[in-house]
Amino acid sequence: MSKSVSKAARATSLPSSKLRPQPEAQPPRPAEGLSIAQVAEQAGVSVATVSRVLNGHENVRPATRDKVLAAVDASGYRVNELARNLRTAESRLLLTMVPDVGNPFYAEIVRGIDSVARQHGYFMLLCDTGADPGRERSYFDLLRRRRADGAICLDPATIQQALGEASSALPWVACCEFDPEMGVPYVGIDNYKAAGDAVRHLLSRGHRRIGLINSDVDYLYARQRQQGYLDALTEAGITPDERWRMNLNSLDYEAGASAAALLMQQPHASNAAPSAIFAVSDTLAIGVIHGLRSVGKRVPDDVAVVGFDDISLAAQVDPPLTTIAQPMRELGETAARLLLQRLANPLANVPGVLLPHRLVIRRSA
Amino acid sequence: MSKSVSKAARATSLPSSKLRPQPEAQPPRPAEGLSIAQVAEQAGVSVATVSRVLNGHENVRPATRDKVLAAVDASGYRVNELARNLRTAESRLLLTMVPDVGNPFYAEIVRGIDSVARQHGYFMLLCDTGADPGRERSYFDLLRRRRADGAICLDPATIQQALGEASSALPWVACCEFDPEMGVPYVGIDNYKAAGDAVRHLLSRGHRRIGLINSDVDYLYARQRQQGYLDALTEAGITPDERWRMNLNSLDYEAGASAAALLMQQPHASNAAPSAIFAVSDTLAIGVIHGLRSVGKRVPDDVAVVGFDDISLAAQVDPPLTTIAQPMRELGETAARLLLQRLANPLANVPGVLLPHRLVIRRSA
Repeated sequence: MSKSVSKAARATSLPSSKLRPQPEAQPPRPAEGLSIAQVAEQAGVSVATVSRVLNGHENVRPATRDKVLAAVDASGYRVNELARNLRTAESRLLLTMVPDVGNPFYAEIVRGIDSVARQHGYFMLLCDTGADPGRERSYFDLLRRRRADGAICLDPATIQQALGEASSALPWVACCEFDPEMGVPYVGIDNYKAAGDAVRHLLSRGHRRIGLINSDVDYLYARQRQQGYLDALTEAGITPDERWRMNLNSLDYEAGASAAALLMQQPHASNAAPSAIFAVSDTLAIGVIHGLRSVGKRVPDDVAVVGFDDISLAAQVDPPLTTIAQPMRELGETAARLLLQRLANPLANVPGVLLPHRLVIRRSA
Repeated sequence: MSKSVSKAARATSLPSSKLRPQPEAQPPRPAEGLSIAQVAEQAGVSVATVSRVLNGHENVRPATRDKVLAAVDASGYRVNELARNLRTAESRLLLTMVPDVGNPFYAEIVRGIDSVARQHGYFMLLCDTGADPGRERSYFDLLRRRRADGAICLDPATIQQALGEASSALPWVACCEFDPEMGVPYVGIDNYKAAGDAVRHLLSRGHRRIGLINSDVDYLYARQRQQGYLDALTEAGITPDERWRMNLNSLDYEAGASAAALLMQQPHASNAAPSAIFAVSDTLAIGVIHGLRSVGKRVPDDVAVVGFDDISLAAQVDPPLTTIAQPMRELGETAARLLLQRLANPLANVPGVLLPHRLVIRRSA
């Protein structure tokens, strides 16, 4: 939901069939490896025969040559495009693998990737892996087999690591989740410091019992943010209480809502329940606000809430959400640029990049 | 955000590197049109030579044969897979084109498509078209050139129509947006009746000044919902006031918020301002609630709000949103099944399908 400008309202009751202007150049038509096989099939000849016709070899019977050229014609391909495919295997497709296409955080990153890819004549296709290693591997197979030229992976670091050494040689880039040891180019933020900033903000507002609603520990970011949270508390002279912490394997609103309700209803003395909650995503935090409301707690009067990401919805909920802003669009754009660098020069050492985050203070904390 | 079950909270402070179990079978490895060209390139020979080697022809020099087989080996492809690619052009890729990957409504539909596609051994790749005709055409080119086997399109009907007659013969299915005249299989809901149901609910609560915050009229659904709104008012003996209606070219939260503020601040007598607003998407409606709050109006006490879609967030906002539920997952599953039917039997007449909607009454109206 990035388009923040709502263009002028047009009051009309008439259907309109006009098209929007076409604001950007189309990517060049991609190279076509498959088309040769199709033309061969259509003409009822072998790929080798098609190749001989396209390359102007002598040893083809005139009737066969006519059949092949008719098939080329019918296919809508141009002869020189087909001939080029004999030389190049470039697909002009880039894959982006996300663990959950429904999380608005990923949507904004994907827009950044897509925009840079199109500027450079690539198509970006999105793969929803569900953070499932099997699906991840299938998509990497498309890359391994050059069905796609390159990939950007936002899946948990544990899944990236499980792909093994063979995969680190493939043309891909890690985004948000990365293991610097893998030798794969990456872009992300300093999750440890960002979580510390969130906790220090709550400490500065006088909170000492601060809860953490965290993601699955398969995510490196979840482990880093937890460490940032723990160290910030310890530095403030507070012994973190295990009962203040929860790990969830979903970032859905509903997951945040039930976790918050559970955290408040634990059988510890009521004065030991957290007076503030740091949730590691805005979707969780928005659910947390709802969950707190459902057990009669007001935000921020009874419990303060800090989220993470700064999705566009964060400013629209009641109360508006204090959160750590990630530069989502820039994360996507940078990932795409790193990948294009790697494709242009497979042997160059593409660096890892950390982008700055920032605390956005609104009413929830 | 569909996973409504938040699995048990795991309290842990130790990083874990275990992988999740692999719950589902992987799709079969896709046929590889491109790989022949790659092997040829690697071996420094023509595609025709690779084909001769794979088919066991006699007229290949032993040194060349060895070079080709070494390239096949190094590529990781298996000889019989490559041989199969000489016969088939099937890509096992399906494309889904959505106008805005950030809208949670589309995310849930995409999950439905993805799940049916994987059950049938296809990969589903998502294309964010931004409702731009040029990008739409580029993706249809992938289909035309058999880079993908089939497609599901959720883009505005005007864009679908602009693709022209040639495209209606391609293997694709229209989802949510469709023109029955195009002869393309489709699945959607009865938008006219659904909008009428929303308005009749507001009428039954005593509202007579009912506003409409609508989408871009490039969308057939926007024109149908507007007609449903107008006819429901007229049937109740109310003359619709043009100043109650707005068309936006964005479904973002922010667009809904500014539209609502504008609608309330128009220079009509304050008793002529709408006492209820029907917004054609939940994202708009959630923005409307925020926008009303920003101009000092309470929901539902001062202004009632009805949305459309029933995204998971609708139940989590304050006040929870009354809305028209679309069967999002089922829309996606049905679209995928229609497409698979069309692929299995290109000549069969695949029908159009309308699925039922339902009014979900919560606190906002």
